[in-house]
Amino acid sequence: MDDAALDLSLDAAALTAQLVDVPSESGSEKTLADAVENALRALPHLTVDRYGNNVVARTNLGRAERVVLAGHIDTVPIAGNVPSRLDEDGFLWGCGTSDMKSGVAVQLRIAATVPEPNRDLTLVFYDNEEVAAHLNGLGRIADAHPDWLAADFAVLLEPSDAQVEGGCQGTLRVHLHTAGERAHSARSWMGSNAIHAAAPILARLAAYEPRRPVIDGLEYHEGLNAVRIEGGVAGNVIPDACTVTVNYRYAPDRSPAQALEHVREVFADCGVAGLVVDDESPGALPGLSHPAAAAFIEAVGGTPKPKFGWTDVSRFSALGVPAVNYGPGDPTLAHKRDERVRASLINDCEERLRAWLVG
Amino acid sequence: MDDAALDLSLDAAALTAQLVDVPSESGSEKTLADAVENALRALPHLTVDRYGNNVVARTNLGRAERVVLAGHIDTVPIAGNVPSRLDEDGFLWGCGTSDMKSGVAVQLRIAATVPEPNRDLTLVFYDNEEVAAHLNGLGRIADAHPDWLAADFAVLLEPSDAQVEGGCQGTLRVHLHTAGERAHSARSWMGSNAIHAAAPILARLAAYEPRRPVIDGLEYHEGLNAVRIEGGVAGNVIPDACTVTVNYRYAPDRSPAQALEHVREVFADCGVAGLVVDDESPGALPGLSHPAAAAFIEAVGGTPKPKFGWTDVSRFSALGVPAVNYGPGDPTLAHKRDERVRASLINDCEERLRAWLVG
Repeated sequence: MDDAALDLSLDAAALTAQLVDVPSESGSEKTLADAVENALRALPHLTVDRYGNNVVARTNLGRAERVVLAGHIDTVPIAGNVPSRLDEDGFLWGCGTSDMKSGVAVQLRIAATVPEPNRDLTLVFYDNEEVAAHLNGLGRIADAHPDWLAADFAVLLEPSDAQVEGGCQGTLRVHLHTAGERAHSARSWMGSNAIHAAAPILARLAAYEPRRPVIDGLEYHEGLNAVRIEGGVAGNVIPDACTVTVNYRYAPDRSPAQALEHVREVFADCGVAGLVVDDESPGALPGLSHPAAAAFIEAVGGTPKPKFGWTDVSRFSALGVPAVNYGPGDPTLAHKRDERVRASLINDCEERLRAWLVG
Repeated sequence: MDDAALDLSLDAAALTAQLVDVPSESGSEKTLADAVENALRALPHLTVDRYGNNVVARTNLGRAERVVLAGHIDTVPIAGNVPSRLDEDGFLWGCGTSDMKSGVAVQLRIAATVPEPNRDLTLVFYDNEEVAAHLNGLGRIADAHPDWLAADFAVLLEPSDAQVEGGCQGTLRVHLHTAGERAHSARSWMGSNAIHAAAPILARLAAYEPRRPVIDGLEYHEGLNAVRIEGGVAGNVIPDACTVTVNYRYAPDRSPAQALEHVREVFADCGVAGLVVDDESPGALPGLSHPAAAAFIEAVGGTPKPKFGWTDVSRFSALGVPAVNYGPGDPTLAHKRDERVRASLINDCEERLRAWLVG
């Protein structure tokens, strides 16, 4: 499909179906990005910018506050679940229904139907969220055009079951190396076993008590876990190396540097021969005390929850913009062959956001 | 080379050079086996049998005792170290000089020069020792023609620096599995970490005190070691499985069943979800109290040492034949590009064996 047209006068559930029926696996978002751009350019109250397959539309009403609604337009690979179909129980099935074309439909409906929001509005549609972090469209906009994302508060319409999830935990992954000396296993006392040397590391992990700090009223829940262990040379050789890969998920009151310092302290006396950072992404504070956030929570209702997993809200946080997840999809159905979304929830979500932005 | 002739009138060092110059990597022993068979068939005091590329020659003098001299004729892959060369310091260089064509040369010299030994003599030349156990020529003879190996005592001319090494330790390799439940590492409390569950196993291994039992005057030295550890699903997943591969090297006063029972006991309360035997080979008692062994030790001199590594002496032990290693090669030079043997030691070794078999 080279050309696709979106009808923003449809209700949010029907518009979700249109979006699902334009395939947009990561790396192949152009057709859908074109359709989104064309639909937005038809709306005179918005200025529209494009960068690659990322589209940003803004009102410019000189309001005291500016808020962002953001969503990614790519999906994981289609698994025989396109085109979409609506069943008799009111569920819309198909790739991206939950993660997160239903959220994108809500963004587009707000764009079309709220020409004079009470807060200036920035709508961000980005690509490559489901693949490697360096390809992420939101990250690339943040690098190339950070001014496009300037705001007081941001809502990411990732699937959250229409619950507000505040901030996100950071993640740090390190390799802990132990060392030994090779020898034939028939004369093991001639060597030194690097796998045995990992015993204190595993003991420390098994006994670790994670923090559960409360931030802005949300109780986060940390975790320190081995996610991989590898060691061994051959079936008759005392191994001279072993690596435990540890993932620390930490609450957003800690910085990446503090997280690394904590991990160093935990394993300080465990005979670690080398600690190498493999991957790290900062957390994001929920920022629920900001007036725009408080108004948002009042408008959408419910009790905000902490977000445990790392999400793109962290990219906003890095730009100084507090952010939350709030979207109609069900996160437990994301990336599944039987992915689906309750159609009525998409419309509810649209109505609640409209209530926040109007009046 | 389709045809090679061996001159058994050369001294043992010169004969070793002839043997090295007939390449016989594992699986390509035919030319050398033919040459050995032809040389032995020329000796009227021996009966010669052949099975594949394995050659067995025997005296039939009706002596009260029968002893075996055994050696493998294959080598590891040649590494630019054939043909052989003798240097000015009296070292013969080349593939197989140490492991173990120098030993084979001693066997052939004894075959040619001791027509009426004081003990009936069985000379075994076998293939495929350096490769997978199921290909091993000695094992295949033991399966097909165990009567060819019947004896009171056996000497394996593997490299031992012309020291008697008695018996050998057994080896048992098991996989210890731990179990858990997968979860996203951002919500680790939803799962159960199988790598952390391996902590008690590694702690037990690190604290293990191996036995050092004395058998027939030889002090063995056991070992219980992790030789491999593997666990992990992805960098953000709590792993549901981890496997520690443990190698138990045990003194020959324990049977394979006792060794397995010991390993089960050691890890009984370590949360092991499954124990699977990966590989096992029994040990071999040194049998030094047998009169033929005692006479051998007196003839060759020195103080017998225990053999820690598993060797083909265990195959004799399984047939009820006590066996030792005794050969002119240097075990630390086996399989090396700069493999070599001291020429004078080959001749010494031949003289000592002759002293045992004559008079």
